[in-house]
Amino acid sequence: MPYVSFRRVDGTTSYGRIDHATIHDAGAVAGAPVDLKAAIAAGPLSALADGPAIAAADVLLLPVIPNPGKILCVGHNYESHRVETGRAKVDNPSIFTRFADTLIADGQPIVRPLVSEHLDFEGELAIVIGRGGRAIAEQDAMTHVAGYACFNDASIRDWQWHTSQFIPGKNFPGTGAFGPQLVTPQEAGDLSGVHVTTRLNGEIVQDQPIGDMVFPIAKIIAYVSAFTALSPGDVIATGTPGGVGAKRTPPLWMKAGDRVEVAIGPVGTLTNHVVDEDVAH
Amino acid sequence: MPYVSFRRVDGTTSYGRIDHATIHDAGAVAGAPVDLKAAIAAGPLSALADGPAIAAADVLLLPVIPNPGKILCVGHNYESHRVETGRAKVDNPSIFTRFADTLIADGQPIVRPLVSEHLDFEGELAIVIGRGGRAIAEQDAMTHVAGYACFNDASIRDWQWHTSQFIPGKNFPGTGAFGPQLVTPQEAGDLSGVHVTTRLNGEIVQDQPIGDMVFPIAKIIAYVSAFTALSPGDVIATGTPGGVGAKRTPPLWMKAGDRVEVAIGPVGTLTNHVVDEDVAH
Repeated sequence: MPYVSFRRVDGTTSYGRIDHATIHDAGAVAGAPVDLKAAIAAGPLSALADGPAIAAADVLLLPVIPNPGKILCVGHNYESHRVETGRAKVDNPSIFTRFADTLIADGQPIVRPLVSEHLDFEGELAIVIGRGGRAIAEQDAMTHVAGYACFNDASIRDWQWHTSQFIPGKNFPGTGAFGPQLVTPQEAGDLSGVHVTTRLNGEIVQDQPIGDMVFPIAKIIAYVSAFTALSPGDVIATGTPGGVGAKRTPPLWMKAGDRVEVAIGPVGTLTNHVVDEDVAH
Repeated sequence: MPYVSFRRVDGTTSYGRIDHATIHDAGAVAGAPVDLKAAIAAGPLSALADGPAIAAADVLLLPVIPNPGKILCVGHNYESHRVETGRAKVDNPSIFTRFADTLIADGQPIVRPLVSEHLDFEGELAIVIGRGGRAIAEQDAMTHVAGYACFNDASIRDWQWHTSQFIPGKNFPGTGAFGPQLVTPQEAGDLSGVHVTTRLNGEIVQDQPIGDMVFPIAKIIAYVSAFTALSPGDVIATGTPGGVGAKRTPPLWMKAGDRVEVAIGPVGTLTNHVVDEDVAH
C-alpha cells in the first residue's frame, strides 16, 4: 500500500498507509517516528505498525514528505524537452534546487504570483531517498530509493530566465506540488514503460515514458551523491518531458481556475488547481 | 561586540559576544534561545544577556549561523568578475543556493574533493537576515539585516560548469567557509568603501570595495524576498570580486596546505586552510 503524510481533523500531523478510503494512522502508534521522513530513516516502511484506521475523507493530505532536508531537481532530462528548450547536450544531469517551503500537497492550490503571469506546468516523477549516503555507486543506487511520487515542478518562466540560474523561477511558494502518495519500488514495479502524463483542464499536454529519461534514476543518484550527501526523505524530481507551456506558440500559461494533473501509472495521480496569489501575503 | 557560534570544551554548542580573547557565553544563561539563529529570531541581539565569560582559546568556532534555513548566493555581482567570466549583463541578480551542510567555520579546512582538482576561492561579504519577510521593499531592506560576516564561496569549477546550473560545484561539503563572527550593521558602519580582500598564501588575489557591487545589498534582499520568504538567520552571500583562480592563465587552483583568507575591514578576517578529501568518507 502507498504511504501518505496528512493533517488530522484536530490539526495535528501524521502519516501512514492508505488503502483507498482508509488511512492507517501509523503516527498514532505509541513510540512511532514523528513523521514519514523519520519513519523512512528508522527502517523499512514495511515494518511500520498500521495504527488506527481513519477515513481518508477526514484528513488533509500534506506533501508526501512535508519537510525534506534537500530537494534536488533535474533539468532537461527528456530529449523532447531538451530539444524544445534549445539546450546543448551535456554529459551530466543539470541540477537545481527547491526550498521545502515551495511544496504543496495533492489538492492544494498552485499559486500564480502577483509578479508574473508566466506560470508553467512540469509533470515529473519524484524519487524519495530511503537509505542516505555520499558517493553512491550507480549499481547500488536503486537500493537507496524509498519510493516514488508525482511532482509538478511548476515554474515562473520569466523569473527562471532572468539570468542563467533557474533558482528564482523554481522557488516561489505554492509551486512544488508533491503527491498524493509514496509508492514503494516493490509496488511500483518496472516504471520504464510507464508514462508521465500531464493534463491541463483535461487535455494531455505532456506524455512520455519514464524510460525516455536522458539520465536514468540510478545515474542521477550517483551524480548527486558525488557532491552532496543524501539523507532519508530527500527528494529528487527527475525532470519533465517535452510539451511545456512556455515553448508553445502561443505560450500556454496556467491561470486561476485551471486544473492540472500529473498521472504516472501505479505511482498515482497528483491533482492541483491554480489560484492567483492573494495581495496580502 | 561581534557574535560567534561555538563548541565548548565539553562538546556542547553555544553562542555569544566575543571581546578579543573573551567570549560571553549567552547560550549558558537560563532560558536563553537555543542558538544564534534563535537568538536573532527572538529579538535584537543587543538585548541578549552576556552570560559567563570563557576563554576564546577554549572553544571551537562554528559557522556564524551553523544551521541557516536558506543560503542564497549571488553570482557575478562585481563588474570585474562578470567581465572575467564572459557573462552577459543582466537586469537582476543571478541567484543560486547552498545546502547548510557545505558550511565550515573559521579555522576549519576547506576540502578539495577526490573528484576534482579545480578548487577555487571566492571571497565575499555575507549578510545574515534578522527580521524575516516576503516581498521586502528595497527601501526597507537594510532594516532586515542582523549583521555581516566573511564568506569563502569555494567552488569546484568543473562541476559548476558541467551544465548551465551551478549547484553541483557549489555544494561539496567543506566548501562554504563562513566566519569568524557576525558584526552588526551598527558596528560595521558604512561598508561601501571597505574592500573584500582575498589572500592565498599571503598574496592578494581579490581586492575590491563593496561599493562596486552591481546589485547592492538592499536590491538583493528585495529581489530574493520577491520569490522566497526570508527568515531570521538566513544567509545571503553577495558575490565575489574579479580575480578568481579559474580565470587566470594558467588557472590558480587551491591545493592541500594552502592558506586562504577573506578580510573585510570591520567585519573581520576569515582564515581557512585546504586539505584533500579523505578517501574514506
